[in-house]
Amino acid sequence: MKVAWAGSRHAVDVADRMARLVASDPVFRKDNRTMLSRKDLLKDTLRKAAHAWKRIVELRLTEEEANLLRLYVDQPGYVDLHWGMFVPAIKGQGTEQQQQKWLPLAYKFQIIGCYAQTELGHGSNVQGLETTATFDPKTDEFVIHSPTLTSSKWWPGGLGKASTHAVVYARLITEGKDYGIHGFIVQLRSLEDHSPLPGVTLGDIGGKFGSGAYNSMDNGVLRFDHVRIPRDQMLMRLSQVTREGKYVHSDVPKQLLYGTMVFVRQSIVADASKALSRAVCIAVRYSAIRKQFGSQDGGPETQVLNYKTQQSRLFPLLASAYAFRFVGDWLNWLYTDVTQKLEAKDFSTLQEAHACTAGLKAVTTSATADAIEECRKLCGGHGYLNSSGLPELFAVYVPACTYEGDNVVLLLQVARILMKTVSQLASGKQPVGTMAYMGRVQYLMQSKCAVNRAEDWLNPAAIQEAFEARALRMAVNCAQNVNQAASQEDGFYERSPDLLEAAVAHIQLIIVTKFIEKVQQDIPGHGVKEQLQNLCNVYALYILHKHLGDFLATGCITPKQGALANEQLGKLYTQVRPNAVALVDAFNYTDHYLGSVLGRYDGNVYPALYEEAWKDPLNETVVPEGYHQYLRPLLKQQLLSARL
Amino acid sequence: MKVAWAGSRHAVDVADRMARLVASDPVFRKDNRTMLSRKDLLKDTLRKAAHAWKRIVELRLTEEEANLLRLYVDQPGYVDLHWGMFVPAIKGQGTEQQQQKWLPLAYKFQIIGCYAQTELGHGSNVQGLETTATFDPKTDEFVIHSPTLTSSKWWPGGLGKASTHAVVYARLITEGKDYGIHGFIVQLRSLEDHSPLPGVTLGDIGGKFGSGAYNSMDNGVLRFDHVRIPRDQMLMRLSQVTREGKYVHSDVPKQLLYGTMVFVRQSIVADASKALSRAVCIAVRYSAIRKQFGSQDGGPETQVLNYKTQQSRLFPLLASAYAFRFVGDWLNWLYTDVTQKLEAKDFSTLQEAHACTAGLKAVTTSATADAIEECRKLCGGHGYLNSSGLPELFAVYVPACTYEGDNVVLLLQVARILMKTVSQLASGKQPVGTMAYMGRVQYLMQSKCAVNRAEDWLNPAAIQEAFEARALRMAVNCAQNVNQAASQEDGFYERSPDLLEAAVAHIQLIIVTKFIEKVQQDIPGHGVKEQLQNLCNVYALYILHKHLGDFLATGCITPKQGALANEQLGKLYTQVRPNAVALVDAFNYTDHYLGSVLGRYDGNVYPALYEEAWKDPLNETVVPEGYHQYLRPLLKQQLLSARL
Repeated sequence: MKVAWAGSRHAVDVADRMARLVASDPVFRKDNRTMLSRKDLLKDTLRKAAHAWKRIVELRLTEEEANLLRLYVDQPGYVDLHWGMFVPAIKGQGTEQQQQKWLPLAYKFQIIGCYAQTELGHGSNVQGLETTATFDPKTDEFVIHSPTLTSSKWWPGGLGKASTHAVVYARLITEGKDYGIHGFIVQLRSLEDHSPLPGVTLGDIGGKFGSGAYNSMDNGVLRFDHVRIPRDQMLMRLSQVTREGKYVHSDVPKQLLYGTMVFVRQSIVADASKALSRAVCIAVRYSAIRKQFGSQDGGPETQVLNYKTQQSRLFPLLASAYAFRFVGDWLNWLYTDVTQKLEAKDFSTLQEAHACTAGLKAVTTSATADAIEECRKLCGGHGYLNSSGLPELFAVYVPACTYEGDNVVLLLQVARILMKTVSQLASGKQPVGTMAYMGRVQYLMQSKCAVNRAEDWLNPAAIQEAFEARALRMAVNCAQNVNQAASQEDGFYERSPDLLEAAVAHIQLIIVTKFIEKVQQDIPGHGVKEQLQNLCNVYALYILHKHLGDFLATGCITPKQGALANEQLGKLYTQVRPNAVALVDAFNYTDHYLGSVLGRYDGNVYPALYEEAWKDPLNETVVPEGYHQYLRPLLKQQLLSARL
Repeated sequence: MKVAWAGSRHAVDVADRMARLVASDPVFRKDNRTMLSRKDLLKDTLRKAAHAWKRIVELRLTEEEANLLRLYVDQPGYVDLHWGMFVPAIKGQGTEQQQQKWLPLAYKFQIIGCYAQTELGHGSNVQGLETTATFDPKTDEFVIHSPTLTSSKWWPGGLGKASTHAVVYARLITEGKDYGIHGFIVQLRSLEDHSPLPGVTLGDIGGKFGSGAYNSMDNGVLRFDHVRIPRDQMLMRLSQVTREGKYVHSDVPKQLLYGTMVFVRQSIVADASKALSRAVCIAVRYSAIRKQFGSQDGGPETQVLNYKTQQSRLFPLLASAYAFRFVGDWLNWLYTDVTQKLEAKDFSTLQEAHACTAGLKAVTTSATADAIEECRKLCGGHGYLNSSGLPELFAVYVPACTYEGDNVVLLLQVARILMKTVSQLASGKQPVGTMAYMGRVQYLMQSKCAVNRAEDWLNPAAIQEAFEARALRMAVNCAQNVNQAASQEDGFYERSPDLLEAAVAHIQLIIVTKFIEKVQQDIPGHGVKEQLQNLCNVYALYILHKHLGDFLATGCITPKQGALANEQLGKLYTQVRPNAVALVDAFNYTDHYLGSVLGRYDGNVYPALYEEAWKDPLNETVVPEGYHQYLRPLLKQQLLSARL
């Protein structure tokens, strides 16, 4: 199962090596992270980043190994943006010449870069950004300026304290005309003493959700007061400003930029399965250790994992972790496929690929955030302790629902493409890829589910068709309602809550389909395939039960068939139960990476919880600071004369 | 609307006075709370508690005023347990004599008390607690002992650092026999120097979810090594141990204890509406300020609050805040009613009242926790900043889902009572109170919803009947399935996930019913009644849409009627929109109590966000600590020789 999860024997091995390398290095300890002050936490992040880079260089790690090492260090910091956004922005939007100048500096960390797009007043609406880059033909420079308070750059990771450079997005103005948002490489800090350059105001935007968590990152604020940069620091792959100030497009197709977006979002889907699997691993292991109730006669109590209520909440999340893992692998393949097609200037699948990645990003991140919190609740009161690891995991994960496209905004983009696809069906245009099923509109609008007995729901074809019919019928219903409005735009606006639901149904179909396709492949290992089949069925029937209203309202299944699905789901839980712990052990996470007393591999939970408590700074003294000032006067009835 | 929310003109006035008293007092500032170290945070809590008590005494505040003052101080601390658990435990379980001895000490804070029930190994299952209290007839004492690691008391608030005394729950053993769990008053710390007494080990259990939040509370760990207390410190109202060691019951009925449970849980429901209304207030106000998209021609962008997707997520939460408020008021009445009946030894409504409070506690706290996080997401990226107030509000609120009865455990208790009620229907026993509708089983099992047009859903009778039919049919279905199993117990276990859903349906019916009853009363104020009617309909139709599968599967409504409900819901949002800000202003919260830059009454959000950022300790220096050690060697390519 380890191999099925990791993808290959090689992947298991290299991940294992890197995880152990990190776990055994005292610099990378993180058990005290939630107790550090903000300053100490940032310092710790800077130290870990430097140490990680040192190890990467010393051990001559490959890129794959280096990425895994950073993953297992498991602390957000400026390097994430340097490698994940700054370098790709230059690669994607810079000319050959610009790449030759800047990439070697970035690769060796002679400069540290970040990605300065969002502003205090604008996030999702990139076209509304206010920062200006005005070309001055007299000096051949751009003047970067923050004209309003709301134009302050706000949120970029690594900006607050660490970065020396940024790719800054600003409205390009030349010859008095506003050409919209473009990227510019701007130096922010002196390479000699790290102080901000003249005209540059820099700071951290303050504390964020949770202890530890994303507070290790210096999300920053940045204001420009007429800062000048050479013309050639505009990223000029797609368009240029000439020496004279003329704005010209290059012959590079704009669609190439979508490739980067697909890449970033597919990696977010992969991250979702990682975060979710960590939470599930903790909750499953602790549920196997924890016992409550069930003893009538002084005998042993029941393992919490044996309760049907626990199983019905936890096993769907276990199945989701696997579902997101496999759909993530497939998205990774899709990215390669799209990239190859883009290089051949074939844009035929781009829109579908965009809908698919945007939607999967939205659905998997929302589900993962909710699932981490659900896992925390499934651990009872102790899940609320920092030592359980779950509060920090939730707090550090949840911004994924907002960054790189707010999930609601993304789902509305999916819905737009769905509406367009439906409207083109009449003209006979055949949808491609994950939308191909919509081409069978005639059949799916009238198909009847053939399930008669609970076990009929184990047939992948029955599941697949029910999900296809549901998604298609919801999209068609929406399209009909949208068309009834005075204008398409009005209709889309009025019906947007329904459109969100239709988009979710389409994306859930993709996840279910890819899981079914996965388990239809050859999968080595004794019993591995059967267990994955169970999980696939759990995922599909859980979604069906959760969204039963969709399936019934569209007449895809009958109430009786819905009840049979639920009955089958209960039976599947019983089958998953004996393998549950093995299924989370297959993630192969070290105790260091899990960072949870409740999720310890050895199950020695209670002594560890007890021991962990004493590390809290409050326990340095038995009598608390403040006793003499604030407790003793109260107890001694001397409060009215006390100075508080 | 302020009066409708607060309950009376008097309630508005006294709340207003106390809120301003707190807001204007610099000791009660909390804007820096998320930046304090754990030690400083506890010290700050001790200071605020002492200062609050001093003000209460100096100003001779009434109990009502004092409770409100503590509410607005808004920082969890030992006083919550002292007044909320320690004092009530002595009142409820102590004899007259014991009350005369201990209550005056507690009332004057000559002692500080907490409530030591849960242990490291046992929470929900109180009968599984392991701490022992063994009677020693030789010395007329109880010996309190922690026989195992898992018997360590764990979680009690105020225990870790502040309390001098506790009501400790332990297995009473006398004459070699275990009589189960009883309460004992135990002194833990010296009243002279606050050091733990011999045999007592005390500490804090460590950091918890979030910054600030519940970390102001010293949830504690406590171990006993054969600690002796006089026999008369057993709480003896319900049962006693005689001088000879005989265990005897008093003639006080055991059911009296339920009164306390009803009281605590009704106050939790009231707290849910407070927490939810704070989150909704922040999200509604900021959604009215924030603008994104919608400008095609450089004109102003659209207020986020005008988007249907925002409305469809936010207005149901606004409606829920009002719904929980009114059902909380009703529960408060129920508590009085139950208390009076108990005093008259009338136990006829006790079981129904228990189901009702347990279920409402579970449903309102779960919904509120989810809603706070949803409000945070509805504020976009800025909701993730501590200065938005929402991360701390979530972290401090969410334990309500676990404490005073885990929500799943409570819902299963409701389900048990539902199953019992269904099984008694055949024998003609008429259910009472909120279960009375189940008596109309013949009608409700076959009733047909009469809705033909969207506006028919504005008829409260149509809503009420649909909710009654759904709840009853789900309960009856469950009962049939349970009865098919080999035993009732097996059936209950197998069907427990379905039973949870049936319990939720029953409780949502109660919330809807009480909201409908509220808006059918006379409500003064121009247009107030109409607005509450809109909110009532929003709440009911939102729940109907969310749980559409239940309504369709049980045949209570048709798919067409479900679609009409959804259509009507969209129209209601349009009607709520112009009043949304006024509806949250009606909560009458000070900026101090809200504690949110995004929720400011004056709407001056962006300058405040900007200003708040600079208060972060990271911004004390422009160049971060750690630059010379960890950034400069990297940038200067001197990492390999650097000492990290």
